[in-house]
Amino acid sequence: MLEAIEGVFIVAQTPFDDRQDIDLPSVDTLVDFYARHGANGLTVLGVSGEAGKLTGEEALAVAGRYIARAGTMPVIVGVSSTNLAHLSRLTNAVMDAGAAGVMIAPAPGIRTDEDLFRYFETVFAAIGDVPVVLQDFPFATNVGMSVPAILELVKRHPQIQVLKEEDLPSLNKITRLRQAGGRRIAILTGNNAMYLPLELERGIDGPMAGFSYPEMLSGVFRLHRAGDIQAANDLFDRYLPLLRYEAMGFWGVAARKEAMRRRGALAHATMRQPGPALTADDHLEIDRLIARVETRLAEAA
Amino acid sequence: MLEAIEGVFIVAQTPFDDRQDIDLPSVDTLVDFYARHGANGLTVLGVSGEAGKLTGEEALAVAGRYIARAGTMPVIVGVSSTNLAHLSRLTNAVMDAGAAGVMIAPAPGIRTDEDLFRYFETVFAAIGDVPVVLQDFPFATNVGMSVPAILELVKRHPQIQVLKEEDLPSLNKITRLRQAGGRRIAILTGNNAMYLPLELERGIDGPMAGFSYPEMLSGVFRLHRAGDIQAANDLFDRYLPLLRYEAMGFWGVAARKEAMRRRGALAHATMRQPGPALTADDHLEIDRLIARVETRLAEAA
Amino acid sequence: MLEAIEGVFIVAQTPFDDRQDIDLPSVDTLVDFYARHGANGLTVLGVSGEAGKLTGEEALAVAGRYIARAGTMPVIVGVSSTNLAHLSRLTNAVMDAGAAGVMIAPAPGIRTDEDLFRYFETVFAAIGDVPVVLQDFPFATNVGMSVPAILELVKRHPQIQVLKEEDLPSLNKITRLRQAGGRRIAILTGNNAMYLPLELERGIDGPMAGFSYPEMLSGVFRLHRAGDIQAANDLFDRYLPLLRYEAMGFWGVAARKEAMRRRGALAHATMRQPGPALTADDHLEIDRLIARVETRLAEAA
Amino acid sequence: MLEAIEGVFIVAQTPFDDRQDIDLPSVDTLVDFYARHGANGLTVLGVSGEAGKLTGEEALAVAGRYIARAGTMPVIVGVSSTNLAHLSRLTNAVMDAGAAGVMIAPAPGIRTDEDLFRYFETVFAAIGDVPVVLQDFPFATNVGMSVPAILELVKRHPQIQVLKEEDLPSLNKITRLRQAGGRRIAILTGNNAMYLPLELERGIDGPMAGFSYPEMLSGVFRLHRAGDIQAANDLFDRYLPLLRYEAMGFWGVAARKEAMRRRGALAHATMRQPGPALTADDHLEIDRLIARVETRLAEAA
Repeated sequence: MLEAIEGVFIVAQTPFDDRQDIDLPSVDTLVDFYARHGANGLTVLGVSGEAGKLTGEEALAVAGRYIARAGTMPVIVGVSSTNLAHLSRLTNAVMDAGAAGVMIAPAPGIRTDEDLFRYFETVFAAIGDVPVVLQDFPFATNVGMSVPAILELVKRHPQIQVLKEEDLPSLNKITRLRQAGGRRIAILTGNNAMYLPLELERGIDGPMAGFSYPEMLSGVFRLHRAGDIQAANDLFDRYLPLLRYEAMGFWGVAARKEAMRRRGALAHATMRQPGPALTADDHLEIDRLIARVETRLAEAA
Repeated sequence: MLEAIEGVFIVAQTPFDDRQDIDLPSVDTLVDFYARHGANGLTVLGVSGEAGKLTGEEALAVAGRYIARAGTMPVIVGVSSTNLAHLSRLTNAVMDAGAAGVMIAPAPGIRTDEDLFRYFETVFAAIGDVPVVLQDFPFATNVGMSVPAILELVKRHPQIQVLKEEDLPSLNKITRLRQAGGRRIAILTGNNAMYLPLELERGIDGPMAGFSYPEMLSGVFRLHRAGDIQAANDLFDRYLPLLRYEAMGFWGVAARKEAMRRRGALAHATMRQPGPALTADDHLEIDRLIARVETRLAEAA
Repeated sequence: MLEAIEGVFIVAQTPFDDRQDIDLPSVDTLVDFYARHGANGLTVLGVSGEAGKLTGEEALAVAGRYIARAGTMPVIVGVSSTNLAHLSRLTNAVMDAGAAGVMIAPAPGIRTDEDLFRYFETVFAAIGDVPVVLQDFPFATNVGMSVPAILELVKRHPQIQVLKEEDLPSLNKITRLRQAGGRRIAILTGNNAMYLPLELERGIDGPMAGFSYPEMLSGVFRLHRAGDIQAANDLFDRYLPLLRYEAMGFWGVAARKEAMRRRGALAHATMRQPGPALTADDHLEIDRLIARVETRLAEAA
Repeated sequence: MLEAIEGVFIVAQTPFDDRQDIDLPSVDTLVDFYARHGANGLTVLGVSGEAGKLTGEEALAVAGRYIARAGTMPVIVGVSSTNLAHLSRLTNAVMDAGAAGVMIAPAPGIRTDEDLFRYFETVFAAIGDVPVVLQDFPFATNVGMSVPAILELVKRHPQIQVLKEEDLPSLNKITRLRQAGGRRIAILTGNNAMYLPLELERGIDGPMAGFSYPEMLSGVFRLHRAGDIQAANDLFDRYLPLLRYEAMGFWGVAARKEAMRRRGALAHATMRQPGPALTADDHLEIDRLIARVETRLAEAA
């Protein structure tokens, strides 16, 4: 059951080749890269996975390849859509393909708790008994979910087993959620991992985020679980200058793909259009930020 | 007490002279015009009253002049603001000046029921025991209020005595509100009066809207209360071509001011800048629409 | 070429059966109904055609059936999507199926003219040489297109042959567009036809709107083209009470489908979920509004 | 002239006492604190200065006190408002009081370049010949300004002497602005200073941001100007964990005020309501983050 999960779910990139077509062989190298650097699970077809640029067939192909390569490592598939028919169809397909669950954010346009509850009633009537990660990401959806509303959704729908929390600032929201009664679900945080050590202190079960150095996410998690809070923070801080660079929306994702390409995680750093294309200045900044991270790591070694 | 009110609250214009300064003498002629055509109350400094273009001093001057001239006719003053200090200060000033109450819409940025409840707790902590018209106008605020949320606000805050309902489509919302239990408050509808006969059928207590022919609003209300639904609809339909023209946002308000200027209700049709300025084509359309209304009225006479 | 079109393009409904599945036989009766009442063309899969609730396969099935039944009557297919891959794929498929062109609104999130121009460069790079109706509908997209920006798009992209104008208030925008130089394109207006006679006066080439009595749209257009402005307005006004009822967003569409079902245009008034379901009160209102229209028509006969 | 400025403009806090009233004596200690830590100028009544919670009188009192205490240090006053009358009145008052200029962001609701140009025409017609900092902050305004649109505004209005750039990601936007021809204006960056060393590399003239350790901002600027890029980055990175904490919107501002209170910069950390109130957990986090910064500084000393 997902509600008992803890650890590091990496938000995975979708690789494209130089012609902007899906690069399925790079999915395999990405899975291996994430696993090698400590991933306990993967989340594919999220916002930063460029899900909004894929056809239904492509989405299924990417998810299927990820699931196949991941083996026993659970794969969550983002299926959020303004179009419930798309959401439902993709959910069925990826669950058949072996996904551990799907991630759903409320559709844009929801403005009240009543709208929110009605939306998820309709969603669950359509998809049935599927494990769901509820994504609280108002920056992307412009839909707010208060703590009482999240708890009510958890109460109504046993399918909700995980909350992906990324409503900035999340810290007190995490505390409130953890202090509330009711069925316990896992809480993983996005927020580009920018607040990971603090979120762990507030009681989350791990990150669900992307970063070109996933070993930072798994390392911080492991150190924190081992009780070495200071070492967790020290490790986090070494990477923070690069982490905050990758937090610049889709430009940050472009930088992340480039950094990962340099590490051999995928063959091309291509973003599908419409989307950012890195400039020479951007490349220079990435060079320098990586060099600084490596210097810091060497100093600490 | 406002909760027992029924009848026609006219949403009043703010008159400007040719130099875009407040035209206080026209406030007097406006009050007389509205009263002569059947107003039971006035709502000043609403969105279509160009409240968002006045300084605090101007707002108070306009409200004060309206209140003074209105005599025993109740005047509601719109005080909504993203700035609670402004809202609170203006509320105190107009209540001191003799307003019957203030109208407040939730501030933009509210995204959940919890935010909404917290907002009004803060508002009422600041303004105290003042009769309030709660305005449900998501088109302007981008804040939704569900029927349960409105009922909860009514329960928590005895100061809320009237709901101005203009969340299109309002019809089933009115029915749900009327069928709910709890403390009864008055429901008046805005929506530029475009659905007035239907809203009356659903149980509202009257319109709170602006129109260059307020006698339509009062006539429809009176006929409906007298049980002559068909005559109410016949009267409404005669004006509908002009009414829908005045429903075009601030362009519609500019047309309304021009139509009212022609009727002698105010000295200038000026809208304060930034705002629309009528073109020659617009004037021609207004000519024709008024002529058509008058023909229809003559036919019916 | 679409740029020379004039006349009445009906925004067509998507019919669903009682189980919320696509009802293809009703597409045939709808085409016949629209044609019989004066349609010169059809626009399918628009916002009010519930396009946002269909899978890709369903969208293609509906569009294909419409095209097949419409014969020589041109069919425009709405393909707007936040997902360019979907947009492109559906465009190719419906053009292969015989569509006369596609309708595209700018994707939500565009905030500047530069963003807008870049978006359509990307779109046309993806879809190639396809006749396009540019939809100016900020209420749905939250993207504004100024008159200069529209003219620039028309200049850059010869594929743009028609503007569907529905940025309320549209009247002065139509005048400005018509007075501008540059390549002439057709302008058809949406706005639920609420301002049709005025828009014709401003120089549009016809409506592109839905209404349960399409004979009003075609009648007003024909009378106006014949120079009988007063008769055009008289005809329009007879239907206006019902027209404004159908203008209430998706509730209005639900009412439209019900009114059309009563006329035999389609077998079921079903809206796909999530969407409104008419109440008994709504049905009663529709009864009365239709009765009033019929009375008015009988009086005029 | 502001267009030649360079250096560090601190975005200043508005101090409140325990009763949520303006704490004017703390304005004096704040000015001294900012000056002591390297400020070359101050920006008061910005978003993070809680300008949206002050009455007009309070705004003027705060700005006046800041200007008086700042002496020869230039003070920019934020005057943005959806209400042009407020904007204009406050502008006149603070310029009379000795402000170096005002900061203006485009009003929410602007959707096209044409709207944008018209807005600033109206603004400058109202305020006249006043030095202006144009604020590009779409996160707060939801109004985008493209590079060509900013250049056009600079060309049309000689009053615009500074751009406060904080449209994330800003880096390539800065490069494009710097590479464009036309009149040179100063570019200062907000973005909570999260990208300051990179922005300096891209050609900005300094930060315009708030932080509880302003010596970091001035130190990074000074080192960068001296050509020691690595030292600038090293200094920046030592503070980054705290900096990113203070970047959490109004929660971050609350933390900043608390950190500054501990340093004696102001008497109370109070945020005016509605606004966040720090929890015990928040205080603990601030303790730890400050301790970490101090350890890092000690290590580097």
